[in-house]
Amino acid sequence: METYSIFKDLAIIIIFAKFFGILARKCKAPQVVGEIIAGLLIGPSVLHLVEQTEFLNGMAEVGVVLLMFSAGLDTDLKELLKTGPVAFLIACCGVLVPLVGGSLLYMGFYGAAPWGSEKFYTAVFVGVIMTATSVSITVASLREMGKLKGKIGTTITSAAIIDDVIGIIVLTFVVGFRSPGSNPGRVVLSTFLFFVMALVVGYILFRIFQGIDDRYPHTRRIPIISLALCFFFAYAAEKYFGIADITGAYVAGIILCSMRDSSYVEQKMEVSSYMIFGPVFFASIGLKTNIDNVDGSILLFSIGFVIVALLTKIIGCGLMAKLCRFRLMDSLKIGVGMMTRGEVALIVAQKGLSVGLLSPVYFTSVILLIIVSSISTPILLKLLYAKDRGGESL
Amino acid sequence: METYSIFKDLAIIIIFAKFFGILARKCKAPQVVGEIIAGLLIGPSVLHLVEQTEFLNGMAEVGVVLLMFSAGLDTDLKELLKTGPVAFLIACCGVLVPLVGGSLLYMGFYGAAPWGSEKFYTAVFVGVIMTATSVSITVASLREMGKLKGKIGTTITSAAIIDDVIGIIVLTFVVGFRSPGSNPGRVVLSTFLFFVMALVVGYILFRIFQGIDDRYPHTRRIPIISLALCFFFAYAAEKYFGIADITGAYVAGIILCSMRDSSYVEQKMEVSSYMIFGPVFFASIGLKTNIDNVDGSILLFSIGFVIVALLTKIIGCGLMAKLCRFRLMDSLKIGVGMMTRGEVALIVAQKGLSVGLLSPVYFTSVILLIIVSSISTPILLKLLYAKDRGGESL
Repeated sequence: METYSIFKDLAIIIIFAKFFGILARKCKAPQVVGEIIAGLLIGPSVLHLVEQTEFLNGMAEVGVVLLMFSAGLDTDLKELLKTGPVAFLIACCGVLVPLVGGSLLYMGFYGAAPWGSEKFYTAVFVGVIMTATSVSITVASLREMGKLKGKIGTTITSAAIIDDVIGIIVLTFVVGFRSPGSNPGRVVLSTFLFFVMALVVGYILFRIFQGIDDRYPHTRRIPIISLALCFFFAYAAEKYFGIADITGAYVAGIILCSMRDSSYVEQKMEVSSYMIFGPVFFASIGLKTNIDNVDGSILLFSIGFVIVALLTKIIGCGLMAKLCRFRLMDSLKIGVGMMTRGEVALIVAQKGLSVGLLSPVYFTSVILLIIVSSISTPILLKLLYAKDRGGESL
Repeated sequence: METYSIFKDLAIIIIFAKFFGILARKCKAPQVVGEIIAGLLIGPSVLHLVEQTEFLNGMAEVGVVLLMFSAGLDTDLKELLKTGPVAFLIACCGVLVPLVGGSLLYMGFYGAAPWGSEKFYTAVFVGVIMTATSVSITVASLREMGKLKGKIGTTITSAAIIDDVIGIIVLTFVVGFRSPGSNPGRVVLSTFLFFVMALVVGYILFRIFQGIDDRYPHTRRIPIISLALCFFFAYAAEKYFGIADITGAYVAGIILCSMRDSSYVEQKMEVSSYMIFGPVFFASIGLKTNIDNVDGSILLFSIGFVIVALLTKIIGCGLMAKLCRFRLMDSLKIGVGMMTRGEVALIVAQKGLSVGLLSPVYFTSVILLIIVSSISTPILLKLLYAKDRGGESL
C-alpha cells in the first residue's frame, strides 16, 4: 500500500464522521452515534470506501487513549474518592449479573451443561464476554452533555474502570482453569501492584509536574510532557501489569487532574482529539464490522445475547446503585451508562477463541452488542437526562 | 506486534524530541535540529529504542503534510503572486546547477562517461537526486523565527514547490530514456492539469468555505473540514497527478489562506502538529538512518556528495536571487533555505534503484545529505538572520 492512501482514508473518515455527527445532533442524538454510523457506512458492510489498516488501528487506539486521558484529567479527585467504595460495589454487581446471565443464556439456547464440562466452560465464557464495560462512549456522551464531572459521571467512570479490572481477573480465572499457563493469583497480584505503582509514582510525578507548571505556567511543554506520561502509562499498564492501556491512560489523567494547569492540558488534548483521533476511533468501531456473513440461527442467538448483555448490566449496576441510595432515575442512568461494550469485549472473545473455548461465529454477537450498545447508550442517556432536567443531585 | 507498543514509541519520541528540542534552543539552534538528533539517538544508529513501523511512518507523513498545510494557510497570497515569477527562475536555476554538479561529481570519482552510456545515465541520476529541495525543515525554522510570511520566506516556499515539480519532471525524463513505461509528455501534462484543477476547484472550494465560515464563524467544523480538504488534496495530488502529497497539502493551504478564519484554522492545526505529529516527523528522519553499514570509500564519496549538493543549491538559487535584485544577504538566505533535502531525495533514489540506475550503497550518501542539510540549514538560517538583524526588506 502506498503511504499517501492514508490521506484518502483520513479525509473520508473526517468528512463522513463530521457530516453524520452534525446530522445526529440535529436529530437530538449524541454526535458519537453519527460517527459510529459513519464508520459502518464507509466500511466493509456498505460502501467499502475505507479498509482497516495497521495505521488506522493505531490512530483509533491513540484516539481512545486520549479520550480516557481527558476523562481522567477532567476528574474531580475529591468526588472520585467519595464515590470510590460505591463504584466498587456497582462494578462487582455489574460483573456478576452479566456473568450469570450470559451463562444461562447459552445453556438456554444449547441445553444445560454439567459443572466442569467443556460446554459449561463455554457457557461461562459467554458470560465473561458480557462483563467488560467499555466506558469511552459513555464518557464522550456525558462530556457532550456537560455531565461528566457530576456525581453520576464520576461514579460511572470509576465503576467502569474497576469493572475492567474485575473483568480481567475473572477472565484470567476462567482461562486459568483450562490452560495451566496463566496464573490467577499472579493477575490479582499484578493488578494490585499496578495501583500501588500508580499511587507512588503518580504522587512523585504529580509533584514534579506541579513544579514544572509553577516555573513555566501555560507553556507548551506542560501538555507535551503530560501526553508522554499518558502514553507511558498506557503502555506500562498493558505491558507490565496486563491491564488495559485505556485504564493506564485514565490513571495518568487522574494523577494530573489536580495540577493547576490541568484544564489547559485538557484543552490542548481535546483539539487533537476532536480534529482527528476521535473521529477515527468512533468510525473504526463501524469499520471493524462486516454484516455480510450472518445467518438465521446466529442472528437469533445474537439478538438474545445483546438483550441479555444490556439488561443484565442495567439491572446489576442499577440495582446496586439503588441499594447505595441513588435516586431511581440516577440508578437508571448509571445502569445505562455501564451497559456499553467496546473493544475489551472483542479482546475477551479473541482470548476465548485462542484457548478453544469459543467458536468464531460468536464474534458476530459481540460486534452486534458493541454496535447496539454504542448507539443506544448515548441516545438513552440523553433521553434520561432530558426527562430528569434539573433533578440530578450533583 | 501488540497494538499497545505504539504508546511506548510515541512516549519515547515525544520525550526525547521535546528534551533535545529545548536543549537545541538553549544552544541557540532551532528546535527541529534537536528533534532530528533525538530521532538519530533513539533509532537504530545508537540506542535502538524505537523502530520504524507502518504506524509511525503514517504519523510522520501526516506530520509533514500538516506542516505544509499550515505553511500554505500562513501564506500571504498577494506576496506569493508577486514573488511567483522570481521564484520560478530561482527554482529552475536551483535544479539545473545541482543536476550538472552531481553528474560531474560522479564522473570525477568514477571517470568520465560517454554521452548515452549506462555510466552516463547513472551520473545524471546522481545529479537528479540532488535536485529535490525539501522545504519542510526550512518552513519550520522560518516559522520559529517568525520569518515565514516575509518576502524571503514566501520566495523560498514557492520556489521549493516549483522546484519539486521541476524535479519530478526531470526525474521522469531521465527515467523515461531508460524505461519505455513512463511518458515525460504525460508528466508535464498532468502537472499542468493539477495546477488548473487546483485553480478551478480551489476557487469554488474557497467560496464554499467562505460561505460556511460566514454562517458559522469560529466553530469546530471549519478546521475539521479544512483538514479533510488538506488530506484530500494530499491524496489526489499524488494519486491522480503524480505530484508529491506535501505539494497538494500546501496548495490546499493556499486555497484557504484568504479565508477570514484561516488563522483560527491554522491555530487548531498547530496544536496537533506540535503536540504529536511534528515531533514524530522530525524524529523519523533520524529513525530512518542506520549508520552501521558505512565503509571508507562510500564515506568519501558521500562527503563529496553532501558538499556538492549543498553548494550547488546555494550557488544556483543564491545567484539567481541576486540576479533578480535581492540583496546579497537575502540571496544567501534563499540559497541556504533551498538547500535542505528530505524524503523526496530518498524517493528519487528509490526510483533509481528500481530502474537499475543506482546501487543501494548510494542511499547512505542520500541519508547523510538529508541529515547534514536538515541540521545545518536551520542553524545557518538562524545565523544569517541574526547577522542581518533589521536589514530584511519585507
